[in-house]
Amino acid sequence: MYSKNIDKILKSEKIEIGDRIKITKNELIVDGILLPRIQMGNTSCIVIKQDNGYNIGIMYEKGIKLKLQKKGKPIELRHHSSNTKSNVNKPTLSILGAGGTISSRIEYNTGAVFPELYPEDLLNSFPQLRKISNIKCRELFNLFSEDITPEHWKIIAKNVVKEINSGSDGIIIMHGTDTMNYTATALSFMLQNIPVPIVLVGAQRSSDRGSSDNMMNLICAANTAAKSNIGEISVCMHGTSSDNFCYIHRGNKVRKMHTSRRDAFRSINSFPFAKVWFDNNKIEYLHNDYKKIGNKKIKIDDKINPNVGLLQIHPGINPKLIEYSKKIFDGVVISGTGLGHVSTNPSKNKLSNNIIPAIKNLIDSDIPVVMSPQTIYGRINMNVYSAGRLLQKAGVIGDGADWLPETALIKLMWVLGHTKNMKKIEEIMMTNISGEISKRNDIGTFLV
Amino acid sequence: MYSKNIDKILKSEKIEIGDRIKITKNELIVDGILLPRIQMGNTSCIVIKQDNGYNIGIMYEKGIKLKLQKKGKPIELRHHSSNTKSNVNKPTLSILGAGGTISSRIEYNTGAVFPELYPEDLLNSFPQLRKISNIKCRELFNLFSEDITPEHWKIIAKNVVKEINSGSDGIIIMHGTDTMNYTATALSFMLQNIPVPIVLVGAQRSSDRGSSDNMMNLICAANTAAKSNIGEISVCMHGTSSDNFCYIHRGNKVRKMHTSRRDAFRSINSFPFAKVWFDNNKIEYLHNDYKKIGNKKIKIDDKINPNVGLLQIHPGINPKLIEYSKKIFDGVVISGTGLGHVSTNPSKNKLSNNIIPAIKNLIDSDIPVVMSPQTIYGRINMNVYSAGRLLQKAGVIGDGADWLPETALIKLMWVLGHTKNMKKIEEIMMTNISGEISKRNDIGTFLV
Repeated sequence: MYSKNIDKILKSEKIEIGDRIKITKNELIVDGILLPRIQMGNTSCIVIKQDNGYNIGIMYEKGIKLKLQKKGKPIELRHHSSNTKSNVNKPTLSILGAGGTISSRIEYNTGAVFPELYPEDLLNSFPQLRKISNIKCRELFNLFSEDITPEHWKIIAKNVVKEINSGSDGIIIMHGTDTMNYTATALSFMLQNIPVPIVLVGAQRSSDRGSSDNMMNLICAANTAAKSNIGEISVCMHGTSSDNFCYIHRGNKVRKMHTSRRDAFRSINSFPFAKVWFDNNKIEYLHNDYKKIGNKKIKIDDKINPNVGLLQIHPGINPKLIEYSKKIFDGVVISGTGLGHVSTNPSKNKLSNNIIPAIKNLIDSDIPVVMSPQTIYGRINMNVYSAGRLLQKAGVIGDGADWLPETALIKLMWVLGHTKNMKKIEEIMMTNISGEISKRNDIGTFLV
Repeated sequence: MYSKNIDKILKSEKIEIGDRIKITKNELIVDGILLPRIQMGNTSCIVIKQDNGYNIGIMYEKGIKLKLQKKGKPIELRHHSSNTKSNVNKPTLSILGAGGTISSRIEYNTGAVFPELYPEDLLNSFPQLRKISNIKCRELFNLFSEDITPEHWKIIAKNVVKEINSGSDGIIIMHGTDTMNYTATALSFMLQNIPVPIVLVGAQRSSDRGSSDNMMNLICAANTAAKSNIGEISVCMHGTSSDNFCYIHRGNKVRKMHTSRRDAFRSINSFPFAKVWFDNNKIEYLHNDYKKIGNKKIKIDDKINPNVGLLQIHPGINPKLIEYSKKIFDGVVISGTGLGHVSTNPSKNKLSNNIIPAIKNLIDSDIPVVMSPQTIYGRINMNVYSAGRLLQKAGVIGDGADWLPETALIKLMWVLGHTKNMKKIEEIMMTNISGEISKRNDIGTFLV
């Protein structure tokens, strides 16, 4: 597993993976639990987990000393599926692996990140998890989230139901962050009557990096899945740039708002359900406006038609983009300007486009068009300005909704999986199904 | 102008537009400056400007009393162009009207908002403006900003140059908020060697509403245009939901982030240039990292090819959208997931799409493809994950840029106005021209 040189020392010192060891290399002295070497990584890099929870990699060098401090429990690397021994006094959680940075490792040669870690490796790395609950682990697939498709949403939904029906008290889905909010939103429509917490969790920095957020996010997700009463799809990610707490966000009201920060995920037009504190495992509920878990039978409804376009309006937009939508899409979500606008050219200005006829043509061809805000924050209101009123007259759906463009997109995919009737589509779109349309504006939810 | 009933009272009381009057109607007593009636509005609605700066409309009713309190200066309604009498001790500002809510009025019958006010009406409404500077007013066009096109950007740019060359000490552009950041970004590329402050200003609430933000925004913009040393295109909008200060944002680093809030505009990945305080007209600079005004000759370079597409990547995206881009666009900006990703399907998963071949096909057909972050905040980094490295290998431009999707879009439009050479396009795109690519990450600019 490790290089020959390292292996020789390990054998002579009777050190095995999982043992607590002390490494001495020149001035450097560190101790921690010896981990298996990084898959696809440098075989000369000795990886130990320190007491602060972070992994560190020490490169082999002649004269390096490894000393056994304490024998550990042997770490079994049963890939693809593993369970901890069941303790009837603790809840049982199912961890479903979908891939992403939370289960990935850096290739040290190139610095690139690959999805290479199995969920149970995390169990070995984070024994705290076992204190919270009995753990069942299953890898569904191992993809970076940009490669996840609506078909994968269905696989996740089916396996969540399977785990719940076989007795799990809570579900954790390990998922890449790039499209985590898309998956959470899809699950919020596909799964109803949710009887146990279902928490998506990811990491912005891979587990090999000192600044990895995977440990805190996973522990907070486990506490949420094991102890909370949240009967909705939620997302658990760092609340701040420090390691103090995670926010538990409503799955269809959260968005990745930064390319790299650990606290990139933000609830939009709503408050998170709760904070979960890392130091004391406490769940601090922030409001009471969510569905609770209970003695319900989970319902799956995963019919979906993913052939929906998402088009952002901007000055100079080529109207052919709207016209061509008729040929390739079964539905279109527009990310409009301001309160929900497109160019209308009321004054017949020679320089302007009126794209409402192209939009009306889509609707008249039974391709529903839904409005969403490119501002991200705020509510669609197509009554204030003439552009909005003309869009409503043309049949554009969405007035009064405070959904994200991505949420409108996935809801329309899901609705189109159920009906082609334009009236029904509008009716279901405008019905609040899983908290995606807030009743009132929560003051103080802007940019927090 | 007003209804016959009102007109009769005005005549008998010798009240003219611009006079200070007191209105008594049942229990209600209000006083202020009589304004012209709202264009297209109800002729029976008497509009006065109160001392707090806000307008109020009082409906005519039998028994209403209007009393002259003080004769005012006559308000001249010279539409399309007007100048104040020049005072050589004060700077001269040019206000260019492009339309939008800041110059619009509510149609009282329907509650809908129309662009109907001319810039000089604001001068009459806000005499404070005259204290700051001599004012020249010109209306370029009167459009809601969703109707503004790249051709209008050129008209604005040309007229800014005209005003500066005829001696203006500062330029204010009154513009709708929906696409104000698009126009500001376009001007930031079209105008170089800026010798006087050029400030775009708008309002989220129309001038007839008690909560209108037009007064504070306009006064702060005038202070910025008259006194600041900012030699870049800037945007002046409410800093908070209170009437305390405006932020002066860099034009190509600001985004409308809320459909309706008055403080909807936010600098992204950068700090605003300054705060301008409403109560004391003071400019508080927040940093020094911007171009200063000086003895320069303004340069206009308004060549632009607007035929650029902006496509957001999402799970289930129809690859035909990328393929068809070849037929209709001369360039494409991708709003990628995370650090700048698209689906790549490295594991040849049957369910996933690999859209990199379609992107490579665009590039091989000399259609440049530029990456931008759908997270809005953060920097593109196509070196961390394999998807990014594959995109770079295919020739996608943008690694290391922290631009907004909208800024990348307009910059590519502008670059395509100058060259079709793929190497040159990449070179100019990756050169920081007007602050659109920040050198370093400013910690603390996320969601503030």
